[in-house]
Amino acid sequence: MSIKKVYFDNAATTPVDESSIEAVLSVMKHSWGNPSSTHAFGRTSRSLLERARRQFASDFKVNPAEIFFTSGATESIAIAFNSACEEGVKHIITVATEHKAVLDAANQMHVKHQIPLSVLNVDSDGAIDLKDLSEALQKFPGQSLVAIMYVNNETGVVHPIKEIGDLVSKHKGLFFCDCVQAALYHDIKPYEQSIDFLSLSAHKIYGPKGVGLLFVNKAREKHALWRGGSQERMLRPGTENIPGIAGFTAAWETALKNQSDALKKVSRLTEHFLNGMSSIKGAKRNGITTTPHIVHISIPSNKSTSAILLEFDLAGVALSAGSACQSGSHKRSHVVEAMNLPEGYVELRISIGRQNTLEDVDYLLSVLKKVAVH
Amino acid sequence: MSIKKVYFDNAATTPVDESSIEAVLSVMKHSWGNPSSTHAFGRTSRSLLERARRQFASDFKVNPAEIFFTSGATESIAIAFNSACEEGVKHIITVATEHKAVLDAANQMHVKHQIPLSVLNVDSDGAIDLKDLSEALQKFPGQSLVAIMYVNNETGVVHPIKEIGDLVSKHKGLFFCDCVQAALYHDIKPYEQSIDFLSLSAHKIYGPKGVGLLFVNKAREKHALWRGGSQERMLRPGTENIPGIAGFTAAWETALKNQSDALKKVSRLTEHFLNGMSSIKGAKRNGITTTPHIVHISIPSNKSTSAILLEFDLAGVALSAGSACQSGSHKRSHVVEAMNLPEGYVELRISIGRQNTLEDVDYLLSVLKKVAVH
Repeated sequence: MSIKKVYFDNAATTPVDESSIEAVLSVMKHSWGNPSSTHAFGRTSRSLLERARRQFASDFKVNPAEIFFTSGATESIAIAFNSACEEGVKHIITVATEHKAVLDAANQMHVKHQIPLSVLNVDSDGAIDLKDLSEALQKFPGQSLVAIMYVNNETGVVHPIKEIGDLVSKHKGLFFCDCVQAALYHDIKPYEQSIDFLSLSAHKIYGPKGVGLLFVNKAREKHALWRGGSQERMLRPGTENIPGIAGFTAAWETALKNQSDALKKVSRLTEHFLNGMSSIKGAKRNGITTTPHIVHISIPSNKSTSAILLEFDLAGVALSAGSACQSGSHKRSHVVEAMNLPEGYVELRISIGRQNTLEDVDYLLSVLKKVAVH
Repeated sequence: MSIKKVYFDNAATTPVDESSIEAVLSVMKHSWGNPSSTHAFGRTSRSLLERARRQFASDFKVNPAEIFFTSGATESIAIAFNSACEEGVKHIITVATEHKAVLDAANQMHVKHQIPLSVLNVDSDGAIDLKDLSEALQKFPGQSLVAIMYVNNETGVVHPIKEIGDLVSKHKGLFFCDCVQAALYHDIKPYEQSIDFLSLSAHKIYGPKGVGLLFVNKAREKHALWRGGSQERMLRPGTENIPGIAGFTAAWETALKNQSDALKKVSRLTEHFLNGMSSIKGAKRNGITTTPHIVHISIPSNKSTSAILLEFDLAGVALSAGSACQSGSHKRSHVVEAMNLPEGYVELRISIGRQNTLEDVDYLLSVLKKVAVH
């Protein structure tokens, strides 16, 4: 008898959509030329690359020259920070609950360029106070880089990106927005939202691993992390990952096309989960203004987080306590710390995918109820 | 009637081998977990990643902890230079015919760290004089980074890597060897060859684009280009490209398994080509001690290189004048300049793959003969 396996860690990575698999496969089989080659094999690849760029540009309503393909969101973040700091920002503002890739990039620039760093706090709901942001922006008028994510990857908290963008713009700062967890269900329009830099990852939206995107507003300087070729207008040297980019683009198009249905489905699953969870005494969802696909919960427990995750794993349920990048660690997540959530609970992230079913949620609930029993 | 298409630009990129396509596909379908996740889905990916690492380590006869996966050779090169320079080398030695990715990395470190740069010349056969290397090494005893490629990507010239490694080692320098064009047909044994850093690219060995490898000897310091996660022991942060790494490893295993047959076949095709070319007056192959799969030729012509490449392209033959990265440029390649090849000729690179046939070569020769007529 095979063990039932259900996957509720879609914020760590998603399965790869069939449309994306087909696109990767088609490029590997038929369009494997080097896009820098001027002959027919090269031109075929080049046209795929530029079609992909135009697709994202069109959906974001930006210029194709503002879209850069990278090896993933972590690299996109690093390029954005490097570019802004080389351009001369004198102050970095970020939030204590940002993804580790952003906090690490901010810290690295802080050390390397001796740029002061302001880390904004959040309340117990994971929200920032825009007054804090406004005050921080006034410390170095016109010289701040603000890095605030659209949707928190652990709690699902949605930050008010348009208001943040307006505020940064009013104080003539630069705005980097990590949109990795927003891409599936939230509207991304960099010009309207006053975003100067944004990052996306293919493998969080049902695309392949190893590919990401960086948007850089055309008014901004561009500073590569390394030299070595003229690809991506020298911002990202090295032969372009055409199969990955094609798979990313297919996954993106599929996500946009089915966005409304997927959103409905995921919202219904989340609601079903929360209804079921209400029978567990003391269990609660954290965060306000949350995305439909990430449910961060606290359950009263004396057990350790890793013991609980092991129980889920043995029952065939994949979920996590925080971001995958920190899964090895047994410490409380920095996000939970920043929200100052009460002791005596274990926090879990249930991230729901459009491929999940009501049966998956019922099974998750049955395991959760066993786990939650003292 | 479809136009005949033959591909002789295998040094720019190779088709993707069926074994590699299957490996990529299998990971995307069945093992798409995030290797940083501790649950079963994550562990499956983690074990694929570590199996891939052990495979390369075993074939190179090195430690798995010395193998790092990257997004490609250009990134591997940049990490190697960054690591060596952060470790404190005071002098960089390279060769005028190195790949642009290496020359650019050397120049960037030269500017950023104000490290003196010695660029060795080559003779008209593309060979370096080991006495020059020895002299350069003595300028900064024990403090030089030497970057010399195994096989030149434009001319196919094979440098005497063992002798170079011995010499660098004798003078207590560090040795970076770009092995991108050597991987298919040459023996790579970093310990025996005294190599401290080496780079490989998947898409030059019938694997997918977007993935590469960096070997770093365990005695060396490791300095990442950016921060953001603990992947690849913090040398290369960001979720690992598991499908790409699996495809790379499958392509590598296929190449090793069939190396002897492929080498024989490619050598026979090269010989067949050179026999056929001998009837073209004034045409000659450049370089001595060359790899079997890259044939760099000069043909007497008053036409421009781009006009000739266009004639080949219209006839359905894909080849190049130099590296793909510089294909857009109409200047003579820096390699041809460094070899001081005579004027009045056009240089072409014919790079032969194991998938090419005698018929392909005959067709190439028929087109070459038409193109070479004045």
